[in-house]
Amino acid sequence: MAEYAVPAPRRRRGRPRAGESDARERILAAAVEEFAAAGYDAATIRGIAARAGVDPALVHHHFGTKADLFGEAVHAPMRPDLALPEILEGDRDRVGERIVRYLLETWEKPDVRKRGVVLLRAAIGNRLTTPLLAEFLSRELLSRLARALEVEDASLRASLVASQVAGLLIARFVLRLPALAEASVDELVARVGPTVQRYLFD
Amino acid sequence: MAEYAVPAPRRRRGRPRAGESDARERILAAAVEEFAAAGYDAATIRGIAARAGVDPALVHHHFGTKADLFGEAVHAPMRPDLALPEILEGDRDRVGERIVRYLLETWEKPDVRKRGVVLLRAAIGNRLTTPLLAEFLSRELLSRLARALEVEDASLRASLVASQVAGLLIARFVLRLPALAEASVDELVARVGPTVQRYLFD
Repeated sequence: MAEYAVPAPRRRRGRPRAGESDARERILAAAVEEFAAAGYDAATIRGIAARAGVDPALVHHHFGTKADLFGEAVHAPMRPDLALPEILEGDRDRVGERIVRYLLETWEKPDVRKRGVVLLRAAIGNRLTTPLLAEFLSRELLSRLARALEVEDASLRASLVASQVAGLLIARFVLRLPALAEASVDELVARVGPTVQRYLFD
Repeated sequence: MAEYAVPAPRRRRGRPRAGESDARERILAAAVEEFAAAGYDAATIRGIAARAGVDPALVHHHFGTKADLFGEAVHAPMRPDLALPEILEGDRDRVGERIVRYLLETWEKPDVRKRGVVLLRAAIGNRLTTPLLAEFLSRELLSRLARALEVEDASLRASLVASQVAGLLIARFVLRLPALAEASVDELVARVGPTVQRYLFD
């Protein structure tokens, strides 16, 4: 799953055309403005293109989907929305363990950890950015997880999972509670994996 | 347990003596400075008294213990450290449920919720205040909970509980994930109580 850890910006082969990297920067700046002004759900590729003064097709060309563009705009340290299909495949009894392992192993990388802490601090500490991350999380991750569960209370189940994994990342990497900061990934997968499994399926 | 929800400042009966409320304010300001400069663990009542230019006995008289003074200095919305003995008493099979119910019922009060969100945002969003709250949590709450468990890996168990309940409060009241924000206290106690119970005793 490592390939999902840090989103790879789409790059064209060969030398960039004149003005191309300008357009890329302009689109990224426009995306930051549009997401901040409209929130994640209401922001559109069309609106971002208009702000940047380019064709919407050029936004897609440089950045892919709205979720991809958002990931770049907030310097997302990982893309759990892209990792999810692989996590959900395979042995259903161990989905909980795979979710916890994916997150903790991804955050072992110093660069991911650093950007992740910055993003968590901003998402929780700043009342303007909180809804932005919450909307992204709900739209791109929790609703997909919920759909995959195919049960009635799937939204609540997915949100309970989010509460535990967010709390785990915060306690281990932001608050740095000693017993959690020092525990191995395997130890935490063994302890927290069954919680996630229970929220999802029990 | 409602009486622990909002710390009651110690008040003397009758009219305050001249200068007494001045001294109280000075001590509180000195406490904020001392906690910010030294952290929770290293801050002392003696140091706070010296900053305020009063006798340490006067600090104890107005504010009680260091934990009490800290609670006032950060406008703590609740004092789980004071509620813990009552929560741990009684049926051991339902400690997990009682912990979750205590927190969620306390946060149902608008005033507690408002101050709680401010405190969570500050503790996580600001790299200067994060260690302060983490130290208070470790010293006054998790280490007491761990001692009550009387098992070898008690610190890890207590910290896992902290990760889940912090994550739950953040997801419900800060991120306001819809399914969690709308769930009843009873529903969440039924879902999350067993997790806390398992972290503590399984």
